Order: sequence, then structure tokens, then C-alpha cells
Amino acid sequence: MILTVTLNTALDLTYGVPELVPHASHRVSEMSERPGGKGLNVARVLSALGHETVVTGFAGGSTGAVLRELLAGLPATDAPGPGAPAPEAPAPTTPAPIAPAPITDALVTVAGNTRRTIAVVDRATGDTTQLNEPGPPVTADEWAALLGRYEELLAGADAVALCGSLPPGIHVGAYAELVRAARAAGVPVLLDTSGEPLRRGIAARPDLIKPNADELAQLTGSREPMRATRDARRRGAHGVIASLGPDGMLAVTPDGIWQAAPPARVLGNPTGAGDSAVAGLLSGLVEGLSWPDRLRRAVALSTATVLSPTAGDFDRAAYEELLPRVGVEEHTPAAR
Amino acid sequence: MILTVTLNTALDLTYGVPELVPHASHRVSEMSERPGGKGLNVARVLSALGHETVVTGFAGGSTGAVLRELLAGLPATDAPGPGAPAPEAPAPTTPAPIAPAPITDALVTVAGNTRRTIAVVDRATGDTTQLNEPGPPVTADEWAALLGRYEELLAGADAVALCGSLPPGIHVGAYAELVRAARAAGVPVLLDTSGEPLRRGIAARPDLIKPNADELAQLTGSREPMRATRDARRRGAHGVIASLGPDGMLAVTPDGIWQAAPPARVLGNPTGAGDSAVAGLLSGLVEGLSWPDRLRRAVALSTATVLSPTAGDFDRAAYEELLPRVGVEEHTPAAR
Repeated sequence: MILTVTLNTALDLTYGVPELVPHASHRVSEMSERPGGKGLNVARVLSALGHETVVTGFAGGSTGAVLRELLAGLPATDAPGPGAPAPEAPAPTTPAPIAPAPITDALVTVAGNTRRTIAVVDRATGDTTQLNEPGPPVTADEWAALLGRYEELLAGADAVALCGSLPPGIHVGAYAELVRAARAAGVPVLLDTSGEPLRRGIAARPDLIKPNADELAQLTGSREPMRATRDARRRGAHGVIASLGPDGMLAVTPDGIWQAAPPARVLGNPTGAGDSAVAGLLSGLVEGLSWPDRLRRAVALSTATVLSPTAGDFDRAAYEELLPRVGVEEHTPAAR
Repeated sequence: MILTVTLNTALDLTYGVPELVPHASHRVSEMSERPGGKGLNVARVLSALGHETVVTGFAGGSTGAVLRELLAGLPATDAPGPGAPAPEAPAPTTPAPIAPAPITDALVTVAGNTRRTIAVVDRATGDTTQLNEPGPPVTADEWAALLGRYEELLAGADAVALCGSLPPGIHVGAYAELVRAARAAGVPVLLDTSGEPLRRGIAARPDLIKPNADELAQLTGSREPMRATRDARRRGAHGVIASLGPDGMLAVTPDGIWQAAPPARVLGNPTGAGDSAVAGLLSGLVEGLSWPDRLRRAVALSTATVLSPTAGDFDRAAYEELLPRVGVEEHTPAAR
């Protein structure tokens, strides 16, 4: 099982409007709501890849209740069930269809109300305006309950992802504490956060971090990918997978350095592309894939997420089509 | 008891942001949520004026549950309770403090999810950008249940206000049906809606309508207040109280024509000012006040709502200070 931790879960609302005009009144023409927060997005993709996932973190109040109700409905059962006729054997070059695996809710209940995030999408241009409520304050007792739950869950985990921002009330070294517990339990740990929580978390020596260019620049002061990625490793991360947006990913690891890129630039909504990359990296790690294959999967998944009409979902057909076409280049020692 | 009907209730969220920038991401710095929809706003003001109120309409789903929970917490108990020491006798010129009266929830449960409305307030300028979710679809059975509940409640009502837009699934003549039932029960009925539902509703001869200048122009084609208001009366409304924004109100009634205006123009947020005016008119009707006194109350309440720092609330001190200073002029028969 893969464990994902989302300390600041959210109910993600998407509102479609013809055009967002400040200081005007808008009728929302389409809306959707789904459980969110980075670790929950990662879990949804892991489930689609056939990996059993447990999600922990905090949820509370009426919004938390809605989030958990929607989470209980995942994975969506549009895949053929066990009683359905077996699909025709696929051609050897296409991956076999995968049944979604269960997502288990191990969230810790808090007294505060889980936050909502609202993505207002201009239907004409596809541009998104984001409104994020503050998360609920978390008390010392609630944090202690989370730590207890987390240590129990680590015992059964093959890997863990620590994802997203910290809600108010949680100390800035919280991720460092969670990284240390994972390492003590011998569970590979990926940290995906930003700012001071990332800086502190790295010092606890996570197996992987997956910063984007902005997060990396904030951490290291450099916008030069190779320099910044190596600097991030020196700060304590064993492996650094820098996501370079449409240019793919740069992986600086104890086993070597690779650069992976999609076959072509794509246009679309990048929301959730980073979470899909995390799911690709962790599932590849658990399956014992080589670094090039993990990176191929991460780049194909995040590109297929940009291409999906629904923000944060990935387009499975695009994923399968892209997977064999992601280019991976190793940097030879001389080039290092 | 005064009955208010809100067919399209809403959970009203207010988000404070430094400035709303389209296509950017915003952290919401302050937020509040409260039960909304025009009839619920009217009920809150009636309660503050000491009038027992029953609210009906539709609520459903998780958002409906939150709305009803918040409604159960109304009125806010910041008034001295029965055990508190009696306040000093007020000076004869100031109205005695009024204890808020109970608001009873007689909403009909529907299968759909009650809508949210989001007011995004730019903290720098006070300007508001509004996002309104569509209401839940209402089935024929749910509408029949509302009609049954409404007729029972009319038996104990001194007056009824029919407020706001229609949710999807309800026929456009719905308000006409509710007006006829009120008239058959001998209960004075005020209709506050717009567009086609207003046009149809007026034909059923409500006692009062309270259109603003835009609603009146849409109904009659005229932006000249006296002409438009008289036209609206000819279409079936017994009395028409046109709200003229900062210029106050024009009342064209079977008993005469009056114009009422606040002592000075005020700056502020007009959200809810119309709902406060409805509460002023209906409470004055039930108390048997003269037309000039009803109009004074309606204008003072709506002006005090514009002045309140919280959208939709009225500033009680401002209300009490304004009440004796609202000017009311009767149009003499010659001037008609």
C-alpha cells in the first residue's frame, strides 16, 4: 500500500462562467466538486494505476464531511468490474487495462471546518481564477493524533508521499518530523511542499523531493535547473526530481542524472500535473522500475493531466500513447 | 407571525481578498458564511424588529444542512436575555430596545443540493464580485409538498413575503399560485421578485410589490418612476413601493401616493437593503402603522443596511438615529 499525507485537505469546487468580470455578478453555468488537496489528488492517480492507497491528514466540519463522502465514492467505477466480459487481449505494445484500486480514508477528524478552494474557469479562454479559503486551525492534540495514526500506517506502507501546505497551528518543522518517522520505519518518503516547510523538511533527508522551477528557485536562489537541483541535493534530499513544466523533468539521484521530456509541447490546464508526477514516481518506485522508466511514467502522466478536459484528471488514452514516446537522456559522468 | 417564502435559498459565503485579479490565485484572508436568499434576509431583520417569523421554501443536500444549522442559531443572542438586568429606561425620544424574536425553520427538504453564493470583496475598494451557483432542481412532488406546507402556515400568518428567484424546475407562474393562495386565505401578501415570475405574479393581484428601478423598467418599459409605478399598479398590484436607491422610495397605493427619502445620501454596500425595506414594510403593516410611518421605517432600515459594515445586516444605532429624520411627502390629488 502507498500512503499519502494531506495536512491541508480541501473541497475543490470548479465554477464555469462565460467570463470573470471583477465587480460584476455571475451565474455559474457549470459546477463540480471533488475531494482535493495534493495527497488526495496523488491517491486518485495511484488508484487509477492499480495501487492500493491510504490517505491520511485532517478533515473536519461540514465541508470535511462532504469531502469524506465524495472520497468514499472513489475510485469511480467506470472500469469493467470482475463480472464484466474480459476485454480482448491488447496488442503487446499497449499496457493492459488496469482496474482502479481502493482508496482508504484514514483522515483524522479535527474540530475546524475543512477549507474550500474555488477555481473559476472562464469558458471562453480556459483561464482560471483561484480562491483558496484558509485551512482550519489544528490543535496540538489533533497533531498528536495525526502522528499516532501516521506511525501505525507506516507499518503497512511501501512508500509515503507528504503533500501540500500546512494548515494554521502546525509548526513549520512538521514535515521534517514526518520525514524522520518514515525513515525510522524504513519507508521511502517523497516530500512535495514549498517554502519554509520544504526547507526544514529537506534537512530531515527525504528520499525524494519534486519541486517545480519556482519552488526550487525559492529554496536555492538559482533558476538554473542543474545548479539548483544539485544544491537541493546538498541540502539533504537523496533524490531531486525537478519538474520543468513543458520541458519535462530533471532527476538528480544517487544512481545518476537523467532528463526526461514529452515528445512535444502540449497546451492545456496544468492543475494537478505535479500530483500526477508524484503518483508516477512513487508507483514506479514501489514496482521496482528503473529510473528512466519511473521518469517516463511521471512525464507521461503529467502531460496526460495537462491534456485532460477535467482539471486534475489524466487522460488515460493520451497517457498510454505518450508513455513509449517520452525521451529520457542520461547525463554521462563527463557531462556532470 | 410573519411568513417568508424563499424558493431559492442559498448559503451565502463572503470572501475578503486584498484585490480580485482575474486568472491569479488568491488566499482568502477573511470569510463568513450565513443562511441566505431574500426571504431569509427579510426574516433576520423582522426578528431583529421583534417579529416572530416562520421561513419556508426549499433546502437540501449538505449545503442545505449547513444552512439549516446556521438558521437554527438565529437570532444571534447579543440582546440581553430574560435573566439579564433590565437596561435603564431609555429617553422618551429613542425607541425601547427590542429583544429579537424567534425564527422558525419550516423549509421543505429537497433531494438536490442548496446553492452557494460567493461574494468576493476587494478589501481595498469594498467592491464585490458575485458568483451564484444554480439552485437545485425542484421536482413536481417537492413543489406539491411546498404548496401544502405553505397553506398550513398561511392559517397562522399575519402577512407573507414571497421573495427572490425561482430554482430550476419550478413553473414561471409559481408566484402567481402562491399569491392567489394568500389572497384566498385573507393574508396580506408582498411579492419581491423580478422578470417573468414578477410579471405573472402581479396578475394574481398581490397587496404589495417592491421593485427597484431596474425591475420596474424591465416590467413596464419606463424609467420614469411615477409613470412606471402607476403602470405596475394597473397590471394588478394593489400597492407598488418602488425603491429608488439613494433617493428613497415612491409608494403608489390605494390610500395615496407618498415619496420618502433619507436625510442624506450615504455610501456603503447596498446588498440586502431591499430585503430590509421589505421587512420594514411588512412589520409596519402588521403593526397597523400609517403609510408614512411604514415608509419611514423601510427607508431608515434600508439606509442603515447600506451603512452596516457587514453586508445585509443593518446598523441598529444608525436605524434609530435615521428613523425620525426620514422625510415623507404626500402627493396631493392635484399633483397626481
